[in-house]
Amino acid sequence: MIFNKNPQSATKPGTPQNGGQRYFRRNSAGRNPHYNQTARPSFARFRAENPKLRIAVLGGLEEVGRNCTLLEYGDDIIIIDMGLQFPEEDMPGIDYIIPNMSYLKGKEKKIKGVIITHAHYDHIGGIPHLIPLLGYPPIFGLPLTNAIIKKRQDDYKNLKPLNIHNINIDDKLRLGKFELEFFHLNHNIPDTMGIVIKTPEGNIVHTGDWKFDYQPTGEKPADLQRIARIGSEGVLALLSDSTNASQPGHQMSESEISTNLDEIISKAPGRIIIGTFASLLSRIKQIVETCERHGKVIALDGFSMKSNVEIAKQLGYMKFSPKTLIDLRHVNNYPNEKVVIICTGAQGEKNASLMRIANGEHMSVKLVPGDTVVFSSSVIPGNERTVQRLKDTLFRKGAEVIHYQMMDVHAGGHAKADDVKLMIRLLNPKYFVPIEGNHFLLHYNARVAMSMGFPKENCFIADNGQVMEFSAGTGKLTKEKINADYVFVDGLGVSDETNIVLRDRQVLAEDGMIVVIATVDSKTGKLIQNPDIISRGFVFLKENKEMIEDLRHRVKKMVIDSDPLSWADTNTIRNKIRDYVGQFLYSKTEKRPMVLPVVIEV
Amino acid sequence: MIFNKNPQSATKPGTPQNGGQRYFRRNSAGRNPHYNQTARPSFARFRAENPKLRIAVLGGLEEVGRNCTLLEYGDDIIIIDMGLQFPEEDMPGIDYIIPNMSYLKGKEKKIKGVIITHAHYDHIGGIPHLIPLLGYPPIFGLPLTNAIIKKRQDDYKNLKPLNIHNINIDDKLRLGKFELEFFHLNHNIPDTMGIVIKTPEGNIVHTGDWKFDYQPTGEKPADLQRIARIGSEGVLALLSDSTNASQPGHQMSESEISTNLDEIISKAPGRIIIGTFASLLSRIKQIVETCERHGKVIALDGFSMKSNVEIAKQLGYMKFSPKTLIDLRHVNNYPNEKVVIICTGAQGEKNASLMRIANGEHMSVKLVPGDTVVFSSSVIPGNERTVQRLKDTLFRKGAEVIHYQMMDVHAGGHAKADDVKLMIRLLNPKYFVPIEGNHFLLHYNARVAMSMGFPKENCFIADNGQVMEFSAGTGKLTKEKINADYVFVDGLGVSDETNIVLRDRQVLAEDGMIVVIATVDSKTGKLIQNPDIISRGFVFLKENKEMIEDLRHRVKKMVIDSDPLSWADTNTIRNKIRDYVGQFLYSKTEKRPMVLPVVIEV
Repeated sequence: MIFNKNPQSATKPGTPQNGGQRYFRRNSAGRNPHYNQTARPSFARFRAENPKLRIAVLGGLEEVGRNCTLLEYGDDIIIIDMGLQFPEEDMPGIDYIIPNMSYLKGKEKKIKGVIITHAHYDHIGGIPHLIPLLGYPPIFGLPLTNAIIKKRQDDYKNLKPLNIHNINIDDKLRLGKFELEFFHLNHNIPDTMGIVIKTPEGNIVHTGDWKFDYQPTGEKPADLQRIARIGSEGVLALLSDSTNASQPGHQMSESEISTNLDEIISKAPGRIIIGTFASLLSRIKQIVETCERHGKVIALDGFSMKSNVEIAKQLGYMKFSPKTLIDLRHVNNYPNEKVVIICTGAQGEKNASLMRIANGEHMSVKLVPGDTVVFSSSVIPGNERTVQRLKDTLFRKGAEVIHYQMMDVHAGGHAKADDVKLMIRLLNPKYFVPIEGNHFLLHYNARVAMSMGFPKENCFIADNGQVMEFSAGTGKLTKEKINADYVFVDGLGVSDETNIVLRDRQVLAEDGMIVVIATVDSKTGKLIQNPDIISRGFVFLKENKEMIEDLRHRVKKMVIDSDPLSWADTNTIRNKIRDYVGQFLYSKTEKRPMVLPVVIEV
Repeated sequence: MIFNKNPQSATKPGTPQNGGQRYFRRNSAGRNPHYNQTARPSFARFRAENPKLRIAVLGGLEEVGRNCTLLEYGDDIIIIDMGLQFPEEDMPGIDYIIPNMSYLKGKEKKIKGVIITHAHYDHIGGIPHLIPLLGYPPIFGLPLTNAIIKKRQDDYKNLKPLNIHNINIDDKLRLGKFELEFFHLNHNIPDTMGIVIKTPEGNIVHTGDWKFDYQPTGEKPADLQRIARIGSEGVLALLSDSTNASQPGHQMSESEISTNLDEIISKAPGRIIIGTFASLLSRIKQIVETCERHGKVIALDGFSMKSNVEIAKQLGYMKFSPKTLIDLRHVNNYPNEKVVIICTGAQGEKNASLMRIANGEHMSVKLVPGDTVVFSSSVIPGNERTVQRLKDTLFRKGAEVIHYQMMDVHAGGHAKADDVKLMIRLLNPKYFVPIEGNHFLLHYNARVAMSMGFPKENCFIADNGQVMEFSAGTGKLTKEKINADYVFVDGLGVSDETNIVLRDRQVLAEDGMIVVIATVDSKTGKLIQNPDIISRGFVFLKENKEMIEDLRHRVKKMVIDSDPLSWADTNTIRNKIRDYVGQFLYSKTEKRPMVLPVVIEV
């Protein structure tokens, strides 16, 4: 089904700039509140009416991407993150996959808010598609997060403005019976936060994506004191990032890679082209600072790269001399050894900047021998071969290629096993809920907790949509599952009924198709002329003319020999042709193209 | 073009068992000849007639796979390896890719022999498809290599028997003006060898796939003394494996992983299921030995797994008690903690054993909690996501999953940087030719040589088919390229003209297709009935009925409104329909399905 894009129940969106005051209990001391003086609200009176807190993770338990968590208590629902997932290789033509919101249909008024942990697409990418279906509930995020969300919204001209509110990290937020607080974590984009959700049944902590970086570049280290205080207040359940939990040790600090970056940037004989994600703002900031130190100028390429840096600069997250940033079209006015280009496309994405540079299709940048290309992001599983081909092309053009595996020019953004252990020791939760990863990654994350003596029955390895219930300090992973099926974004369409279309695409991709058209007399059922045969993606037709002619004669004979009167309808002829053609072609080629028989009655 | 499968020039194949005596100068002392006493043949007299040795690598310089090297001197050609490559992700439906032999068309009589370095498919897989085209030239390999080649040939019933000859590692082989010698190397299958090709212009060394394993399991270490002697005789060019040359250090020894394997096999609480490649015979041998040590029984699963072990046992490469190997159908007769199953499918290959076990589709093995699944092979780039999904499924069934990244249960089979350096120091070649890897891997391999002071101009980074010429001790990477285009094996078809079919499959996979059939009166050109529209893989039709109806009416109107007399032929109508439908659908969906207009004239 497709959701109604303008649901009747849509409430009027608030005005983003100042409509959110009613939600906040903002501490007047600003960013450094006397946190301990804030008494915990008493929720005991709600117990009788709604004795259970329900949590369901709608996306991110069976994949990397489309992160979305639902918390429900009586008439109040909050949503944490609303991401997108890039399609698997068996989903040709699909743009991306977003969380399924069908459970919330009819419950739009219960949705008290959507809180976004940070500005990466696997946490914000579903917003333009899903927020309208939910009646534009208020969105809360830190300033950089919100700025990037709003920027992306520009691509969706037909939507109403978002009801979006900036929070400070020290704010308290009341959304129905939930009281929310936030704490600073490191990742690889500034303004990354974890969330404490205080509920009548106990405190829940949701980490979003995180790592502990004791020496981050250009932002504060994760707020360990704050996390420890949250732990001392008691944590019922911790929902925590599984992405890198299977890896031993502590995640590398951004500052540790600066030695290598510095060496590459200072020693390269000519231009340097650095490919990375537009969203890795911490990395980009570090590259910019290194370039300034060595008196190099920087050109940015890629729409999202430029807009993210612009946003970060406007909000004060990045600072650089106005002379440092030059227009890409002017790079040739500078000596090669002074130029650094930071661009998108390090995953080999089609049409992204680095791909166009490599293929010689870039308007301003032509590769020349002496250029050094640096891949400063890890390769997402599934992109390996594309990245290999991209490297081949770069070498062929005479560039030097440096990949993160060869020098430590990439630090991951996710907690490793020792980080997970520290988080567990700081928060001391009763229940541990691995989130954000494929199913096997959740197991490995749980294994980390269990290796510290965490009881197995208190680790909830849930499926997408599987409901966890918490009541009176006790949690339960129920068998109830709310709908969390894939919702596909495919061109302009959004649908959860795309499976049949995908299956067809897979068949077409594998063995192509053949259309057999029989034109028959509508009165007598007799074949009027030789069947037409069209085929694409099956076999090279010029090489197989004889086979196709043979097939045409056989179909003709089959239709003529059949008794037209015994055909109840054209369906019967069609099925006969389909079976016959399929068998014939398989015997000749061992391939199974999609056979589309058409009977035209005239 | 397709090669004629029974070329006129085919010579009669020799009888494999004893027809090869004429090629050999076998040392009567058997496996330990007084090698240094063999005088080097004088080739000086050939110089005048054919002053140049030509080497072209037909496959393996731009990919991992379809390894094939051609050496030509006057009227003599030899071929080293004849492998297959698995298709890239943008080649849907293709089974695999093999080397292009069109350069050899008409030169069949010059082909004096095909030498195979070891029995992996990327070195032997092209044989059944290519050997018939070449007139069944003699094939030479070590016994295990030949046994596996012959076994695979059973799948191709229509072919003549191969003209195949076992060599001993100490044999000398004369093939036309080439004199060949061999030396033992390590890899991860026994009977892996390098080749010295003595030519009138100097000695060429071809490594095949290799590593130096100082403590291999169940075979000898690489013959360093022999390699050193070859070096002392002078090496003009070294063609050497690039697969892992970009990685620093020395490749892990098979023996180093035995501690981990031993721990896993001895401590697992229940059954152990080990997924690996059927071709990793060294690994399989080690697992079998570990199991015997711990009193476990072994069941093998997977056709190639069983046949490879059977061959290795028959030839004496593997030894185990007859009680150790049990029939997979009888595993349930043994206590779980006594059972180890070794199976194929660790790459998540469809229909392979481990996949069927995971999906509950296996006849004899149903996963139960307590089972431990071990992935004992590295993941081939491109298979990462499939392997992740496989792990998800295994965890869901309650199995414990151990992957090679978590414990060192996999040693690679290819030389790392330090191994490459040792090989270069031992052989001291004048020219270094990186082979076996993507283009960027060749660069990294050359970089290893250059880091030792090897002159850049003596490193030949060639493309597939690019001719290297050697004359009077001097080599040159020429600009001549012989045809090395892809040849696709696609069902029963073998063709190098598949690109257009592949492009169609890619379009079909991305956005599907739509067939629009207009039936017109052949005399008046008038539309007889409403156009028929069939679509697959484009959009979900039920959700888009209105759009399709709208399209049908628009096409009808367009055809009716057009002046039939102005249509030179049905091509014009077809093109008009194609353009119109394409634009209409893109405006509605932002997708570009393949539009197939059909005009039926009755």
